Amino acid sequence: MTTPLAAIVLAAGQGTRMKSDLHKVLHPVAGRPMLLHLLASVGELGPERTVVVAGARREQVEAAVQPLGVAVALQAEQLGTGHAVAQAEGALAGFEGDVLILYGDVPLVGADTMRRMLDRLHAEDEPAAVVLGFRPADPGAYGRVIAGADGRIAKMVEFKDATTDERAETLCNSGLMAVRSRDLFPLLARVGNDNAAGEYYLPDIVQLAAADGRSSAVIETEAAEVAGVNSRAELAAVEADWQRRRRMRAMAEGATLIAPETVWFSHDTELGRDVTVEPNVVFGPGVRVADGVTIHAFSHLEGASVATGANVGPYARLRPGAVVGEGARVGNFVEMKKAVLGRGAKANHLTYLGDAEVGEGANIGAGTITCNYDGFFKYGTKIGAGAFIGSNSALVAPVSIGPGAIVGAGSVVTADVEPDSLAVARGKQEARPGWAKRFRDMMSSRKAAAKG
Amino acid sequence: MTTPLAAIVLAAGQGTRMKSDLHKVLHPVAGRPMLLHLLASVGELGPERTVVVAGARREQVEAAVQPLGVAVALQAEQLGTGHAVAQAEGALAGFEGDVLILYGDVPLVGADTMRRMLDRLHAEDEPAAVVLGFRPADPGAYGRVIAGADGRIAKMVEFKDATTDERAETLCNSGLMAVRSRDLFPLLARVGNDNAAGEYYLPDIVQLAAADGRSSAVIETEAAEVAGVNSRAELAAVEADWQRRRRMRAMAEGATLIAPETVWFSHDTELGRDVTVEPNVVFGPGVRVADGVTIHAFSHLEGASVATGANVGPYARLRPGAVVGEGARVGNFVEMKKAVLGRGAKANHLTYLGDAEVGEGANIGAGTITCNYDGFFKYGTKIGAGAFIGSNSALVAPVSIGPGAIVGAGSVVTADVEPDSLAVARGKQEARPGWAKRFRDMMSSRKAAAKG
Amino acid sequence: MTTPLAAIVLAAGQGTRMKSDLHKVLHPVAGRPMLLHLLASVGELGPERTVVVAGARREQVEAAVQPLGVAVALQAEQLGTGHAVAQAEGALAGFEGDVLILYGDVPLVGADTMRRMLDRLHAEDEPAAVVLGFRPADPGAYGRVIAGADGRIAKMVEFKDATTDERAETLCNSGLMAVRSRDLFPLLARVGNDNAAGEYYLPDIVQLAAADGRSSAVIETEAAEVAGVNSRAELAAVEADWQRRRRMRAMAEGATLIAPETVWFSHDTELGRDVTVEPNVVFGPGVRVADGVTIHAFSHLEGASVATGANVGPYARLRPGAVVGEGARVGNFVEMKKAVLGRGAKANHLTYLGDAEVGEGANIGAGTITCNYDGFFKYGTKIGAGAFIGSNSALVAPVSIGPGAIVGAGSVVTADVEPDSLAVARGKQEARPGWAKRFRDMMSSRKAAAKG
Repeated sequence: MTTPLAAIVLAAGQGTRMKSDLHKVLHPVAGRPMLLHLLASVGELGPERTVVVAGARREQVEAAVQPLGVAVALQAEQLGTGHAVAQAEGALAGFEGDVLILYGDVPLVGADTMRRMLDRLHAEDEPAAVVLGFRPADPGAYGRVIAGADGRIAKMVEFKDATTDERAETLCNSGLMAVRSRDLFPLLARVGNDNAAGEYYLPDIVQLAAADGRSSAVIETEAAEVAGVNSRAELAAVEADWQRRRRMRAMAEGATLIAPETVWFSHDTELGRDVTVEPNVVFGPGVRVADGVTIHAFSHLEGASVATGANVGPYARLRPGAVVGEGARVGNFVEMKKAVLGRGAKANHLTYLGDAEVGEGANIGAGTITCNYDGFFKYGTKIGAGAFIGSNSALVAPVSIGPGAIVGAGSVVTADVEPDSLAVARGKQEARPGWAKRFRDMMSSRKAAAKG
Repeated sequence: MTTPLAAIVLAAGQGTRMKSDLHKVLHPVAGRPMLLHLLASVGELGPERTVVVAGARREQVEAAVQPLGVAVALQAEQLGTGHAVAQAEGALAGFEGDVLILYGDVPLVGADTMRRMLDRLHAEDEPAAVVLGFRPADPGAYGRVIAGADGRIAKMVEFKDATTDERAETLCNSGLMAVRSRDLFPLLARVGNDNAAGEYYLPDIVQLAAADGRSSAVIETEAAEVAGVNSRAELAAVEADWQRRRRMRAMAEGATLIAPETVWFSHDTELGRDVTVEPNVVFGPGVRVADGVTIHAFSHLEGASVATGANVGPYARLRPGAVVGEGARVGNFVEMKKAVLGRGAKANHLTYLGDAEVGEGANIGAGTITCNYDGFFKYGTKIGAGAFIGSNSALVAPVSIGPGAIVGAGSVVTADVEPDSLAVARGKQEARPGWAKRFRDMMSSRKAAAKG
Repeated sequence: MTTPLAAIVLAAGQGTRMKSDLHKVLHPVAGRPMLLHLLASVGELGPERTVVVAGARREQVEAAVQPLGVAVALQAEQLGTGHAVAQAEGALAGFEGDVLILYGDVPLVGADTMRRMLDRLHAEDEPAAVVLGFRPADPGAYGRVIAGADGRIAKMVEFKDATTDERAETLCNSGLMAVRSRDLFPLLARVGNDNAAGEYYLPDIVQLAAADGRSSAVIETEAAEVAGVNSRAELAAVEADWQRRRRMRAMAEGATLIAPETVWFSHDTELGRDVTVEPNVVFGPGVRVADGVTIHAFSHLEGASVATGANVGPYARLRPGAVVGEGARVGNFVEMKKAVLGRGAKANHLTYLGDAEVGEGANIGAGTITCNYDGFFKYGTKIGAGAFIGSNSALVAPVSIGPGAIVGAGSVVTADVEPDSLAVARGKQEARPGWAKRFRDMMSSRKAAAKG
């Protein structure tokens, strides 16, 4: 039987260096707010309760986590990490089990690492607390964890209080912890604020437990996993690291990325096997790409699904609800929104398909526009299988083009077109011989006069 | 007199880690299958015969090399590199001369290096075999080449069989070799498979020759040149290295790449002097750009030729057969396919020119579409010199617009237009005063009702 | 009181390695010629006179600096840096004060560094000259500056003349100097050319002053600031460094750059707070972006202004004179040139707005084209507040669409449209039942025949 789990996510920092009106933990990485990355990871462990501790802009955090049934506790004053964790006590009233302490601005910690922390908490030597440590390239001013080879912590020390020997240690404290709820709050109650900053420090519970004769343990992870975000530059660094790992995974799973460093994924992108992605492709949230698809350069997809063997771009813009059928082709400067392109159908050039259904094998000529909006409502366009829409046509929705029908180039179609029939809606061509020459002569003189 | 040359290219690996239905050696680098890069390089040396040894998916390899008159030998079982080379013996029956042994998944080895290998084979000390060595950043588990300062090989040793001292050597075996045909096959016949893997190893011929009292030699090359491809990530790394070197060459030859790391070349791209390439440009195969051209950001060219002083993009999409004349301008969101834009002509915005000829100095208005396809055949559009095509026009091919003619904006042109004449083909404008207000009032109530 | 200042900028190198018809110092970095970067920096110090010394292609340099009132002196022969500086003597006739000696191909030296050089020149020990030194990663063949901890120069030595001990020094000479005018020209007159190259070397004035019993001083700066440009690859490196620093500044000031390495700024780009820039955005010269704006991927802006909360792209092309109003939206494949999009107005797809004014809250349908050019002149289009332009319309300028008016989809509007009225200008739709099927049958047989 697994011990019940609760998670406390600290998110009460001011985030001043972000210079933003948006709460720091809501800045997105891979198209998803940092906080939600973390909640998704902890969610894999099935916590009974999750509490986010927030201060300024708490209402933004509440709005973001409300759909997840996550509680938000208030830290009204910034009195240190120990104080912040203590604010979650009310929300955890009655809970007995393990508690993970996480940070909303340390978003990429994975469920595996969390699980390792909990496993260590329940190892034979039953540590009072488990600290997540890491070895950064430059340990700089991080707090150090002095521990034996077995991970038992001898001392946690802030950099400014550390001796030269202690500063030579390279194992640093990420701040993340696992503690039993029955230990956490009593220990926190004993943490004092007798230090330069007058703050209550969470790591002090390790010393307090030690004073009770109970040791704590540290486990290690890679520095990148516990990278924190305090500025937009650090946000970009975390994004870059996330993207780098996602690209490696895509290639390992059988996609060709010609220039991996120029492909941006979202947190939920799904790519099939033998997919080729040319340079400079952006995947927004909600994209699924099946096997054997080629996504050409400069394409931008979000909320779209692309079936086997389809061909997308270059310069294809697939917006939410775009569905590209098997072997279909959506070419350059083509936008699709809530639109289905049937199996083998083609929309190759300069086209807008909105609120449209295009049947199998239909051909949408260059410059075709579905006129789906009258300023108030959106309306649908249906194009039957095998239909042929001549170039530069406007299809004024709601309208239906029957299977096998042809629309003459340059038509403005306002009424339904019967199956297998031809519809033409355009003006009659008139010629004025010599007019162009006369016009040119006149305008040339004017232009000369304007310059003279 | 030069010794006759044959090349054996090993391409029988399974390529499992590629997770692909395409044979590993056919995955492209710089728009050309890896195998063809290698065959092009060896081709510079004028080999009498070339044999590719393939196993699984041999038919894909055959289809790729058939146009080049290259033979494909079958290695039915995977019994080691020595065994693989032996499979080429039949295809080389009657051949007497030098043999280069290459690898289809080591695609970037240059003709110069191959030539150096052959020169070494014919040096005064007449080595039995010439091995191509390299010094990787991390020698890891590569087989080591133990050699003197003169390149004479004392020993070839697999990493797992190497002593600590031997492992400290940094010169590694790339696997590439040059051997005389009269030595190669007799030596191979003596190679055994008495090792852990039960495989016949090609490097064993060096030891066997040594046993006959004949030494072999090693020459070195840069690690990047012998980088192998076993996964999509390695494919991307080889692509990146190729692109890096190509960009340096472009700059050395007098092109400005504002952000070199964002310009992708193909194996056959030709760039003139004083060409400026803005960030994010993709050159597909078959592109020639003359002196003084500017290629603006986000352009994608393939099979296109751009003449002196022309201006391309941003967002120009030049497809095969696009020819941009001297000083001509092809602007944003413009696609050209089998289309000629005459000297000084302009197509600046949102235009599709397919199967078209545009004369000197003609002006193609924004949103112009050549309607070149009726669902069955493609038809041509001719636009004479100095013609002016009004914006948002559709030119329904086959159609010809005479020199100096003007097409009124928004026209659908279905009949030829005489030189110097004006053609207009559009509906008459009608006004319904107050209609818009009434419509708005009605729809607003409906919208309110729908919400209420 | 500040000492008067003059600047001499050397720009007489041949620039052979650039392989260009454009003078080396006129190649742009961040959208501005290198020379103008330098002149802008020196301009912050308010120099009384500035002289550029040029040789070949002097006329290009003159054309570039003429608007700035900067003199150009001729160095007809390439006789060394000392000789080059001496050519500025005439242009500085009558000037008394400090002289900064700069290099047109060392473009990124900042005003702060120049100020530090001048401050050092006027420090208590009154050096005869101040040399700007730097410590490159690889000192290679740079001339070394042998100096004490106080910056007093013991010796300046060319690499080829340096002893082993001197070569071990890592402080190198950037070539930049500050000298009093009353010292500079007399010292230069004493510089000889008794060396291998037969050139007059500027650094020799340090030795000559020392012979007079006057010491000189060195101050240091970062290697990147004094990076020189002799080839296109070095030009790209300087551009990359400039961009890297500009991106860091943008993020520090509160912009989110999702992939900073793919955003290109110009020298004068202005970004507000809480601006989000997606991957792959190019800012040409003259762009101002207000707070809270999102610039989506693949957008290209120049000479444009974007107001608070507006939404741009992806694939938006804003050309000079584009003004996007508060909360307005300019979407994909939309080009604006000399066009104003009012507050809250939308132009979302495949549109060209040139020489146009769009009122508040107006909606521009997909595929709308303003026809602003008749081959001779440009004409304006006015679209009133709240107007609705149906998709695929052509607005033939000069034309005015009144506030609240509606233009039916696919219309070609040639006459003004009254406020609140509806305008429709298109052909009547006609149907030919069964025609499409007959056409298909006929063409299928033809196609079969063509193949048969």
